[in-house]
Amino acid sequence: MESLFERTLAAIKPSDKEVEKAAWKRLDNLTKPRGSLGRLEELAAQYAAARGSLKAAVEKPCVLVFGADHGVAVQNVSAFPQAVTVQMAANIAAGGAGVSVLARHAGASLRMVDVGIATDAPMPGVVNRKVAKGSADFTLGPAMTQEQCRQALEAGIEEAQDAIAAGSTLLGTGDLGIANTTPSAALYSAYLGIDPEEIVGRGTGIDDARMKSKVEAVRCALAVNAGALNDPFDTLAALGAAAKRVPIVIDGFISGAAAVAALKLKPEAMDYCFFSHASAEGGHKKAMNAIGACPLLGLGLRLGEGTGAALAFNLVQAGNKILLEMASFDEAGVSGSEV
Amino acid sequence: MESLFERTLAAIKPSDKEVEKAAWKRLDNLTKPRGSLGRLEELAAQYAAARGSLKAAVEKPCVLVFGADHGVAVQNVSAFPQAVTVQMAANIAAGGAGVSVLARHAGASLRMVDVGIATDAPMPGVVNRKVAKGSADFTLGPAMTQEQCRQALEAGIEEAQDAIAAGSTLLGTGDLGIANTTPSAALYSAYLGIDPEEIVGRGTGIDDARMKSKVEAVRCALAVNAGALNDPFDTLAALGAAAKRVPIVIDGFISGAAAVAALKLKPEAMDYCFFSHASAEGGHKKAMNAIGACPLLGLGLRLGEGTGAALAFNLVQAGNKILLEMASFDEAGVSGSEV
Repeated sequence: MESLFERTLAAIKPSDKEVEKAAWKRLDNLTKPRGSLGRLEELAAQYAAARGSLKAAVEKPCVLVFGADHGVAVQNVSAFPQAVTVQMAANIAAGGAGVSVLARHAGASLRMVDVGIATDAPMPGVVNRKVAKGSADFTLGPAMTQEQCRQALEAGIEEAQDAIAAGSTLLGTGDLGIANTTPSAALYSAYLGIDPEEIVGRGTGIDDARMKSKVEAVRCALAVNAGALNDPFDTLAALGAAAKRVPIVIDGFISGAAAVAALKLKPEAMDYCFFSHASAEGGHKKAMNAIGACPLLGLGLRLGEGTGAALAFNLVQAGNKILLEMASFDEAGVSGSEV
Repeated sequence: MESLFERTLAAIKPSDKEVEKAAWKRLDNLTKPRGSLGRLEELAAQYAAARGSLKAAVEKPCVLVFGADHGVAVQNVSAFPQAVTVQMAANIAAGGAGVSVLARHAGASLRMVDVGIATDAPMPGVVNRKVAKGSADFTLGPAMTQEQCRQALEAGIEEAQDAIAAGSTLLGTGDLGIANTTPSAALYSAYLGIDPEEIVGRGTGIDDARMKSKVEAVRCALAVNAGALNDPFDTLAALGAAAKRVPIVIDGFISGAAAVAALKLKPEAMDYCFFSHASAEGGHKKAMNAIGACPLLGLGLRLGEGTGAALAFNLVQAGNKILLEMASFDEAGVSGSEV
């Protein structure tokens, strides 16, 4: 029998190009100079094509935040102690974190999912899908076993499916985990051939000494795990959403690395991805450029958690409403262009 | 007796730098790496300083769209006939235009104000503050008399005051009027010393021949009106808001030209201005750079009407909520940075 992972990959098809064409036709007839709403119009057309309908509205947007600890945290790569992962999962669930505020502001629901936080303690409000109490240190060998990796990926697919079953037609990805920019940098390096020096950034704000350790850790991990897939915890949330034709808004550096992994597995998933913001972290802009993505916002964010995704929901919804709610020249009795 | 205009200028004071300092102190203690919410944090601090309180929330945002016809429309500078101004004012008031949709999406109210539309017909839902049935052609002489100019400016102040009296603590500017990018380009040229060739853009989408006429019209107007202030219809909405310590979100090319005029009159008004987006129109980016403004969004918008302002409300509100709603490290029991 095929696994959930294989079935999901097989279910992903390109978005509906006929609907996209029809969306552009409608957009070109709305009461505005052609193309004058810029990228909002692109968002509207991409959303309609993904959903396969000109009439599809964005319903119940939901941010999925996947939390896990990374064994590489022992390698002096972060400014914060590992205990912060548990503490921040509780803060996110309780409503006090950046993503909690921005999801609420966007009118979006938020699910904080534990895929591998290094604790036994119960965390109220956090969904338990724990695969392990933290991954292994990937500078010494694989971060996890193949079976653990499959479990983590399927957790992502299932979370996306659950949110869609609850009525969401727009998902957002987020991440939590001390040291998580380190494996993300390694993923970008491995998949896009970007040198660690160019992709590694200062994460939560590390000094020069830790920066050197971090680049070293990435180089080491790439050598030790040559060719293997590392830590793509939320990769498959994007694939799970694409399989159901529900677009997903990718957050920043970490979710972006997972998206790069997802796109390597299934390039068609690109039709379902919106890239929310150009992160201030490391070589994110270079990586986005390499996959042909042009992030929507450029506000210097580098918090992660899904904060950029939550913020960009507003733009996707705005584009969607332009298509659904604006009057055409005919409908409003407005004269068209003379030229 | 001093005029409303003079009283308003005198009432504008710099924003509260002590509150700004306190806002940064709070922002630095919230549960995130310092500065990691980028420009959202700057928005939060600027808003608090403008309002003079750490606890000030954004209430009842309102977009003010000022419509007027420009005599220069006869000079072959636009792709649309002048009748479109009247038609679009009705469309905006009826809810079918771009700014109608985006203001609704932002949860903002919208006032469509007629300051000088070239018609006698009543326009349901449009506020009547008509100074003239269109301005004169400024390539032949002044666009309006000094008295008309004062009336138009005071209409802007009074509209801002009315919105504030109704409870708005964040205003947005917008514009409507066939040919209005032409006088706006002239304002940028006159105030910032940018050559017409570099600032004039294609507006609603004009061809090369009309582009040449448009540059010529601007050159001609600058020569004919050397040193005079032209057409700043919505300038004083910004000043009216600043006088009441209510921040205002400036739309794009046209509102930006009015803001440049306002800043020349009262540089302190800058503390109360948020610049919503880098317009795709002409030399807007260059002009924003010249006044030290860094627009929030870069989405290729060039519709005007206040669409960019309405879209950027969401970001100002997001920054504001970060300050008001996020937990500090102490409050959430989260460990701080080790370095």
